[in-house]
Amino acid sequence: MDHLKKICATGSKAACAAVLSLAVALPAMAIDKVRWKMPVAFKSSLPGLGSPSVFAAEQLEQASGGAMKVKVFEPNKLVPPFEILSVVSEGKVKAGYTWIGYDQGKIPSIPLFAAIPFGLKPWAYMSWYYEGGGHDMLQEVYANKGYKVHAELCGIIGPETAGWYKKPLESLDDYNGLKIRFAGIGGKVIQKLGASVTMMPGGELFQALEKGTIDATEFSLPQIDQLLGFNKIVKYNLFPGWHQPFTASYMLINKGEYDGLGDDTKALIRNVCTAATVKGLTTSEYNQGAIIAGFGEKGVTAQKLPRDILVKLKSLTEEVLAEESAKDADFKRVYESQQAFQNNYKLWEGFAYLPSDL
Amino acid sequence: MDHLKKICATGSKAACAAVLSLAVALPAMAIDKVRWKMPVAFKSSLPGLGSPSVFAAEQLEQASGGAMKVKVFEPNKLVPPFEILSVVSEGKVKAGYTWIGYDQGKIPSIPLFAAIPFGLKPWAYMSWYYEGGGHDMLQEVYANKGYKVHAELCGIIGPETAGWYKKPLESLDDYNGLKIRFAGIGGKVIQKLGASVTMMPGGELFQALEKGTIDATEFSLPQIDQLLGFNKIVKYNLFPGWHQPFTASYMLINKGEYDGLGDDTKALIRNVCTAATVKGLTTSEYNQGAIIAGFGEKGVTAQKLPRDILVKLKSLTEEVLAEESAKDADFKRVYESQQAFQNNYKLWEGFAYLPSDL
Repeated sequence: MDHLKKICATGSKAACAAVLSLAVALPAMAIDKVRWKMPVAFKSSLPGLGSPSVFAAEQLEQASGGAMKVKVFEPNKLVPPFEILSVVSEGKVKAGYTWIGYDQGKIPSIPLFAAIPFGLKPWAYMSWYYEGGGHDMLQEVYANKGYKVHAELCGIIGPETAGWYKKPLESLDDYNGLKIRFAGIGGKVIQKLGASVTMMPGGELFQALEKGTIDATEFSLPQIDQLLGFNKIVKYNLFPGWHQPFTASYMLINKGEYDGLGDDTKALIRNVCTAATVKGLTTSEYNQGAIIAGFGEKGVTAQKLPRDILVKLKSLTEEVLAEESAKDADFKRVYESQQAFQNNYKLWEGFAYLPSDL
Repeated sequence: MDHLKKICATGSKAACAAVLSLAVALPAMAIDKVRWKMPVAFKSSLPGLGSPSVFAAEQLEQASGGAMKVKVFEPNKLVPPFEILSVVSEGKVKAGYTWIGYDQGKIPSIPLFAAIPFGLKPWAYMSWYYEGGGHDMLQEVYANKGYKVHAELCGIIGPETAGWYKKPLESLDDYNGLKIRFAGIGGKVIQKLGASVTMMPGGELFQALEKGTIDATEFSLPQIDQLLGFNKIVKYNLFPGWHQPFTASYMLINKGEYDGLGDDTKALIRNVCTAATVKGLTTSEYNQGAIIAGFGEKGVTAQKLPRDILVKLKSLTEEVLAEESAKDADFKRVYESQQAFQNNYKLWEGFAYLPSDL
């Protein structure tokens, strides 16, 4: 404690004694004083997807006794959603919160940590991330492409819906020529079916649907899609969310800033982000049943894809994942690690869990 | 900061000035200094079931910058596992960590927070607990029976196995006359089938099986049961874990002690216990697949109960739960709250999630 040493070196004996006595009475305090601006990719009002960012900021401040203050900036208030990785890596801001899958153009393997078609369920992804080396691989993947960030899983939600359409999907041929917003690897899968896939942030989707710039869109959970108003324009909501069984968000922290923090502060961030991950998951899982139960009232039809269509989509997904693996060493390595666990997990899941309809 | 005021009131001006200058340089520090002994119900070496207690203690110390020190006492080192609630409530120790279902004799509704046959899956239980009022109900349930504890969910695991048997279970008649260790409400269900049900802590089960005091037992996850050596004596392991789809552990804190903590300290405990809950879940879900894959080598047969037997067990479970509801107002209230959510959740689960075999 430099300040203390200085007082004892330059002050009176009484001052030094007083300071020492005070220092003994205080608990060892090792949480760093932090003042971060944190731009986020999703409105903090979106339950489960956006809300964990604010939850994490609040908990960091409170559980650090005020040592850490993280100010959340809503989308576009400080930087546009798709630029969060760059500004954090360059140190223009110290932290950001985003769905890192937006950066698949820069880092091909990143969707594996964000959302993967026919991938792990949220709790299984968390298991691979925390226990199976996923967290460390993510840091390596960023470093390998020259990005200077530390990433902490800090939010996760259950399956998105497979999108909103003007009419029921009768066969996969319906994707041919369809103008649709569809994120991540899932977008590459339906491109193989002839879809014209575009990407845009959630906040622009309602207008794009209304103007006819797109015919259809996927975005997030039923509750969130409803808040964005999709159901006012298109009435058919497709399930299950084959393209994103889990959707993970992260707190990105500038690498230099993170490396300069003490171990205690790092531990606090990790614990709070784990709690924020739970906040995302439990919000997601708690709220959707009631929304689906209310579809009838709103004139929305929930359509469930039959097994034969899912089997075809899975086969196309495997093609895309094989192509991505062939193009990028990190993709291959991470994908193989996830696949090995996913096979093990299916064995456990099949034995241990009751059928969903019991 | 009383200490500071005292120095300024009684010390020299120089001492007071030095202290004030030091106080300004320090971050606002509001985490209380805590020194707790924490007896636990399970060996901390049991992955997922026991390990989160030590994880929570370590994280509390680190993320508080050393302000909080919680010393874990292994089972029976300080108090026997089944006495943890009493000693914490009486303030003989400030904290404990246990599977609270052991206290169903004292608090009939407590199994609903610990493990419930055909109940919620772990992540769905967490959703109900954190978002559906479960946490608050648990505090009320303790208070209503005169216990002075604050409870924090601080560990959860996936389904236990439905037990270890000498031979395959051919029909539910096989439970008639069987001497078996079977915990919680599940034990009451198989009592209806004529089983002679006993309860004893995990550490005594191997010997009881070996001596023939019991014919069969359930205890926990495949990995944990194997660590306890059940498979050396009995070779048939039954699935799915209909009697405990989730198994939750809690940190119990003496109510007076907890109420005396500052809000910041409470926030830290809540975040760390949420992270410990994740630690339990991810350890549970990450490890079991490989254990089951290794059953063949160890001469263990995994048997899956057919649907018609599960349907009968569910019907018996509903009888028991109705009986318990009729006997205890808290049981009825909590059970109805869980059931309402469980029905909603099944709707979401059925639409949103891919079939397990895809």
